Order: sequence, then C-alpha cells, then structure tokens
Amino acid sequence: METKSPEKTAITPTRQHDYPEWYQQVVRAAELAENSVVRGCMVIRPWGYGIWERMQRELDQRIKATGHENAYFPLFIPLSFLEKEATHVDGFAKECAVVTHHRLELKDGKLIPAGALEEPVIVRPTSETIIGESFSRWVNSYRDLPLLINQWANVVRWEMRTRLFLRTTEFLWQEGHTVHANEAEAREETLKMLNVYSEFMHNVLAMPVFIGDKPVHERFPGAVDTYCCEAMMQDRKALQAGTSHYLGQNFAKASNIKFTDEAGALQFAHTTSWGVSTRLVGGVVMTHADDDGMRLPPRLAPQHLVVLPVIPNPDVAGRVLEFANGLASDLRGVRFGDEPLAVRVDSRDKRGGEKNWEWIKKGIPLRVEVGPRDIDRGEVVLYRRDRPHKEKIVLARADLAARVPQILQEIQDGMLVAAKAFRDQHMIDSVQSYEDLKALFTPKNRDKPEIHGGFVRAKWSEDPQSVSLLEDLKLSVRCIPFEQSGRIGKCVLTGKPATRDVIIAKAY
Amino acid sequence: METKSPEKTAITPTRQHDYPEWYQQVVRAAELAENSVVRGCMVIRPWGYGIWERMQRELDQRIKATGHENAYFPLFIPLSFLEKEATHVDGFAKECAVVTHHRLELKDGKLIPAGALEEPVIVRPTSETIIGESFSRWVNSYRDLPLLINQWANVVRWEMRTRLFLRTTEFLWQEGHTVHANEAEAREETLKMLNVYSEFMHNVLAMPVFIGDKPVHERFPGAVDTYCCEAMMQDRKALQAGTSHYLGQNFAKASNIKFTDEAGALQFAHTTSWGVSTRLVGGVVMTHADDDGMRLPPRLAPQHLVVLPVIPNPDVAGRVLEFANGLASDLRGVRFGDEPLAVRVDSRDKRGGEKNWEWIKKGIPLRVEVGPRDIDRGEVVLYRRDRPHKEKIVLARADLAARVPQILQEIQDGMLVAAKAFRDQHMIDSVQSYEDLKALFTPKNRDKPEIHGGFVRAKWSEDPQSVSLLEDLKLSVRCIPFEQSGRIGKCVLTGKPATRDVIIAKAY
Repeated sequence: METKSPEKTAITPTRQHDYPEWYQQVVRAAELAENSVVRGCMVIRPWGYGIWERMQRELDQRIKATGHENAYFPLFIPLSFLEKEATHVDGFAKECAVVTHHRLELKDGKLIPAGALEEPVIVRPTSETIIGESFSRWVNSYRDLPLLINQWANVVRWEMRTRLFLRTTEFLWQEGHTVHANEAEAREETLKMLNVYSEFMHNVLAMPVFIGDKPVHERFPGAVDTYCCEAMMQDRKALQAGTSHYLGQNFAKASNIKFTDEAGALQFAHTTSWGVSTRLVGGVVMTHADDDGMRLPPRLAPQHLVVLPVIPNPDVAGRVLEFANGLASDLRGVRFGDEPLAVRVDSRDKRGGEKNWEWIKKGIPLRVEVGPRDIDRGEVVLYRRDRPHKEKIVLARADLAARVPQILQEIQDGMLVAAKAFRDQHMIDSVQSYEDLKALFTPKNRDKPEIHGGFVRAKWSEDPQSVSLLEDLKLSVRCIPFEQSGRIGKCVLTGKPATRDVIIAKAY
Repeated sequence: METKSPEKTAITPTRQHDYPEWYQQVVRAAELAENSVVRGCMVIRPWGYGIWERMQRELDQRIKATGHENAYFPLFIPLSFLEKEATHVDGFAKECAVVTHHRLELKDGKLIPAGALEEPVIVRPTSETIIGESFSRWVNSYRDLPLLINQWANVVRWEMRTRLFLRTTEFLWQEGHTVHANEAEAREETLKMLNVYSEFMHNVLAMPVFIGDKPVHERFPGAVDTYCCEAMMQDRKALQAGTSHYLGQNFAKASNIKFTDEAGALQFAHTTSWGVSTRLVGGVVMTHADDDGMRLPPRLAPQHLVVLPVIPNPDVAGRVLEFANGLASDLRGVRFGDEPLAVRVDSRDKRGGEKNWEWIKKGIPLRVEVGPRDIDRGEVVLYRRDRPHKEKIVLARADLAARVPQILQEIQDGMLVAAKAFRDQHMIDSVQSYEDLKALFTPKNRDKPEIHGGFVRAKWSEDPQSVSLLEDLKLSVRCIPFEQSGRIGKCVLTGKPATRDVIIAKAY
C-alpha cells in the first residue's frame, strides 16, 4: 500500500476520477479532520488545527496592525435579540441550535432534559445582535468612535448537508465588528478588511482571489452591501473565502447604537462586520492538494521541514540520530519570515518508506533524509513537496541553513503562480448566451462526469429573470469584481442590455 | 471624580470596606469584563481579553514545549456519552445547557423552537467523553502512545450564582487530554502539567500557589486523583487556580480506549486531563489589584507602557506628539523576555488627569509623561504602577530603552515577593482544635464583617465526620500539599490521630 510505483497515487480516487471523494480522502490521509459522532460537527486533528493556528496568527497580526482589538462575547443569544433585525431572522432561524433546558435528570435510567428556560437561547450563528447590545452601551460620543473589535470564536449553523471544513454545523472563525460615525468611514473599513483578507489569501495561503460586490440577493442577512473574496478550486468551482459587510444603520437601529456627534446631535452609528472561517482550510486543500495528498504553502505549514533518519542497521542509529537532531537544532535557529523554522525529527519506530509517504500526504514542504553515508560525505538529501517525490537535491550540510528559507520562499511563490495559472486557464470570456452557458456547465458524460466549467466573465443585467435562469443551471453570480470595463453589453442570460461585468460559476 | 486627592481611592468601596463589591468595581473600572444580558455569561472586554491572550500565549508555549499538540473537538456532546461514566454524570448533569431543537419558527409574531432533535445534545461542560470517542479510534497500538492533546475552547456550566471571571456560565479554558500505556507514565504526565501550571503562575502571574492533592470528596467527577494549585486571595480566601487529574482507566473504559501492548495483549489505556480557565484573570485581580484598581504583572500586561503626551497649549502639540511617537517607536524595538515591548501612545482628546487615572485603574505597569519642558531637557518622566502614583522617576531620554526592561523585571519580581509575603503573613499554624478554627473563621462584627481568617496548616484525619464539621464552618481542605512532615499529630477537627498535613480555608 505505502510504497507506490510511479503510476500509482497515494490518494484514491484521483481528482479527475471523483473529485468530491478525492477531497474527503485527502482530508483523511493528511489527518486534517474527521467527522464526529455529533451530526455535522467535525474533529479538527492536530495537523489540521496547526494549519488553522497559522492562519489565526497571520490574520490576528494583520487585524491588530489595522487598529482592532480582540474581545469575547457570549456563546448564547436570547431569541428576542434575533427578532430585532427582520432580515437577520430569516437568514438564520432555519438552522440554529436552540438551548431550552439547563439540566438533566435521570428517569428510568435515561437522562432527560429538565429545568426549562423561561426564554430559550440559541447558540450564536454570528454575533451582530449580541455584540450590538454591548456596543450600545460602549458608544456614547463621537469620541468613542471608531470602535474596532474582533472576536475569535466558534459558531453553529445547523446545516443539513455537511462536508469537512467547507460546510459544518460548528465551525471556528473570526468575526470583526466595528462602529463608525458615518457611512464613508464604515465603507472604508469594510473595504480595508476585504483587502486585508485578499492580501492574506494571496501571500499566506497562496490562493488567488477575486474581490468584489455580491449581488443583492446574495448579501449577508441584514447587510446593505456584502463584499467577498472568491477563489477557484481545482474542480473549477468557486469558494467564497471571506466576506466583509457594510451594515449601514440596520444593526445600529436594531441594537440602539447611538452617539452624540460633534454638533451635539444624537445619531445612529454605521456598523460593519467581516469574517473568515475554518472553511479556508478546505479551500487550501482544494487549491493546492494533488493526487498524492496535501501540499502546504510554507507560510501556512505547521512544520516546514521533517528530518527522516535513515538507519540501515542498529549500530549506526546513535550516530544518525545525533546528526539529525543537531541538524534540526541548527535549523530551528533560522528564521523564515517573522517565525523561526518549524522542524521535526521523525524518529518514530516505523519503516522509512511509510514515514516518507505520511509526510508527503500531510504536505510538509520539505523532507530531509540523513543516513550514514550522507554524514560521511557532509551532505544531506532534500526533497521538495512541489517537485516529483524522488527528485533529490543534494546539499552540503553547511549550506542547508542558508538554503532552506530561500527554497521555502521559492515554493511559496511557485504555488501562488501555479494557482493563478490554473485559474487563468479556466477563466472563460467567450460565453455569449444562455445556451452557451448551459452547454459549458453540462457534463458531456452524465454517468461519469468529468471536471468541467470554470469562471465565466460576462455581462449581467441584474433582473429577477436572470437570477432564476442562473438558479436553473445551479450557477450563481459569485461577484461583481471591482475591476469593471464600464462598457455596455448584452446580459449573458437574458440578452438585455447590461453594464456590469460579473463572474458566474458553480459554487460550494 | 477623576482627579483624586491623596486620601481618596479610585475604587469605591475599598478592599477593607467591602471586598466582594471592590472586586466588581475593579473589574469594571479596569474595563476587564461586564455581565451580559445572557444570565451568567460575561463579555470579556478588550483589556481583559488582552490579559487572557497573554495567558494563552505563555501557556501554549509551555504546553507545546512539553510535547503536546492542539486540536479541536465538537462543542456538543450527545446525552448517551455523558451516561457512560456514572460519576461524571452526577458531576455535570445538574448544570448543563441542553440543545433540544435545531431551528426556530415564527408563531403569532414570536420565535419558538422547532425541529426537535431525536437525541438532545449538551454544550460541553468538559470534553473527556467526546474526546475519548476520537481517542478510541486514534489509539490502537503502544506505538500510538503517549497521545498528548490540548484544546483551547469555551465550556458551559449552568451556574446559579455567578461572579465575573470567577464563576460564569460560559468560560474559556484549555483542557489537556492525554493517553498513556501505564499508570506510571500517566501519573508522571499529571504531575508534569501541574508543575507547568505552578511555574506559569509564579513566573507570569506573580501568583504564588500551593500544589498538592485534593481530598477524595473534592476530586473531579470520574478522576482517581485530582491535583491542584491553590492561591490565596487578598481576602485570605483560597482560589483553585488549576487542576490536573489522573483518570486511571475510568474514562478509557467508558470510551473504549484500548491498545495492543508490546506483548500483543489488548489493554485499557490510562488517561489524564488538566485545565486552567479565564478564572485566572479573576485570580490575578484578587492577588494584585489595590484600592486604585488593577495592577498587572508586566509579563501578563497587554501593554507594558503608555506614553502620555502633555500638551499645555495647542502650539506645541505637533512637537510633543512627534517626540512621543518617536519614543514609542524606539521602545517597540526593545524586547522584554521573548516579546517586543508593547507600547501605546495615548493621544486621545481627553484631559491628562483623566487619562492618567484610566491607566492607573487598568494597571498598566509604566506610564511615561512627555511635555515640552521634558523634551527641551532630553528627559522623560516615568511612573510605576507599583509605586505611589505621584512618585516620579526622571530619566534621560537616551537611557529609557535600556532601563524599561530592567524596571519591568523589578516590578514583576516585586509583585511575586509581595504576594508571597502577604500569603506568608496569613498562614496559620497555631490552630489546634475545632473551636480555634471556628473562632478564626467567625467575623467579630457580624454587621460589618472585616477580612479575617487565612490558610490554616493543620493535621487532618480524612474521616467523614471531619468533612461534615468543615462543611458546617463553610471551610474545606484546599489541598494536601506535596510537602509533608510525615509526623503523626491530632486531627484539627476531630482530635483523632492524623498524619496528613493539609491546608484548610474558605474558598471561591
């Protein structure tokens, strides 16, 4: 099983053969996460959580560098709060966990709920309303503004169909919530954080994204404007990777967030919210993993390099392990970006081939083998996850510390270039009509559908008929990119005159 | 209100006057947390959350340095899981949030729970059972052991009486969960993590703790042995600051965590769990705060130093702010321990005296004033939170960067020394009988009780009668310290022969 001939892949099925199943198998083989016994909730395993921790650290720095502070608000939201914002209720009432009791009693040997709550509470699906309650007390004067808060938390949306990372009942996220004196400042904040996300996704996740507006019917429930980052996965579907909302005065009115302005008049504030979640881990899998498992951009990898000691006979074990540990120790003193290199020596009592394939499947950027002959020669053998698995790079031991950060940066840059090239290859500008669109998104072989479609760039008229035509095709307008030609053209769906350039795709 | 005469205190009432109310007022004045509209749940404000983030960072490093990895498990636990460990059910069934429905419906304009779950789930009060489910699949062979996992999470225990940080319905914590091949290794882990906690509490929180066993009746529900860190608060009551449990094979049997040993036999594993929570923030308040508000040990402070520009007239504003920002920028390049100095310039449009008192109440270790005359002289004026508020330290601007880390370390050390001295002062070795004990813990004036009592070091016989006598006095055996005299003596409660030295106190 573990030692592969060149034709075989570590992951079965391959992407081409069955993409959804390939995704599940990569998540399993890389030990990123697994389904739990609780319907729709996942267990994030150490390697997957390590990736999330790297995302948190990188994003948290950026969120703080733009003047925000972290805080923490209650997990529970009273039903009466949800009722305050009508659109918001519609958006979340259908999928929330409701706490109705506060203890359990044994009855006939079974535990049953007891202690009914006077007012049930829900587990937060998002925190606008509960945070708004605090903000209404914290904001009094224009001097208190802007109020720039972020929260790292778990949230629950009782989804019917779940998929590890991409759509789960419980997920982890950050949710920024800010309050401003006027629309201009609130809109500036909304776009600033969208750009922070986009920069993070490009430079850390090596995941290119389009940024732009969401169409009206795809806005966050209660938002005036929703902006988004949209990424293309390897099955050419779109993943909404992050959103940033200008909420106008809707939530300020619902939560009574008012302030006295410089002229002494009482005004409702303008608020924003913005978030990214553990869904991004799934996005990274679907952007970078291949048929041998995960591939991690170095800036996101919980470990950059693993040292694999090669011990042909027990006599040399001590010498090889000492060399391996010395190497690891030296490398830990080297920095990659702002962080020290994360290096592990894998001295587990397992066969070398098995360990090698485990790390390939986990997607660690670099593997270094050291055996007695390498030690004698003062050399080490380096393998890159972005190159064929048997391609050796022989380096002098003395050069390794200087070379590793350079090679990691090459891998990081190469992964972004490759992801961009893939996306560019599947951008489609030639679709002129509904029939073209339908043909493009209809698999040629219904029994064994291949990966098809892409991101269609076209004109869109925004009318209700066009939206229902899209729904028929199970497509959506993913975003209205900020870059617009300004030219008038024909709506790809209705043929009516249209000015907006949009991106249409199938979506997760 | 804000500019105090020397006799007045920033916090009303003082500790001596009304300790519980003083605590609430410090938490409020320092903007650490506030009660939310959800019964028993708190809002952790940015300054309080910043303290928790510092705790997380310091502890997380220590947890990882001892070989543990972070992971994340579901928020929800099926009722059937709780039923698996009988003692565990008894411990948590009375105070848990029960989710019974998964959506809401509008009926007569009100939202009501809908979509009843087949099996209700509870919000985790602790995660032994749900994590055990994963461990039962992850552990197969002795080669998989030890399994060393930690989780940072929120947990819910539906408490009837709550107090910010010290006892809240929802709180944040870390919970370590480990699996070992035998009792010796599991016990070693349990004690190792207790020592990690103790070292962290001494060196970061400047909070001295006793470590030792809990008596049998105070063990964690389902544990074979519970070890604890106990700290003395300024009202001389005890705070359980952290616990570490050797769970024997109880949870391994409940969750079916088995492994094949080296001889090929199938065995139940031995597990441990250990945790500290946001309760520690309350512990730090009650260890270090004074009648003017919070005092933060520098290693725990979200900000080490605030620069307060003094602007006697608008003409000099530009010059003073430029100097202040330059100073802050220089200081941010200096390290305190492993971290860069966290420095803020408070240029808010508020009166200087008001800002100064805000920072005193927040407990920032150092305040630096810079005005035009200081700039002319090339000097800055430094104030330490651990010294009288008006005590100036005049330093040459050029010396500041070198002096600040030294002074911070002095403050850190001084706070630990002071907390130890306070504790030593209220250790009582002279109690010989139940009557002595009763007298010691009975306030002299019932109408206006003063702070009284302390930590009584005495012999204890462990019999049930002694436990109920303690309960009558609302006291408890806080811990059986590892340091034991070994001598036989008389139980302070029953007069019976007793060998164990214990610490008896009133507790939070």
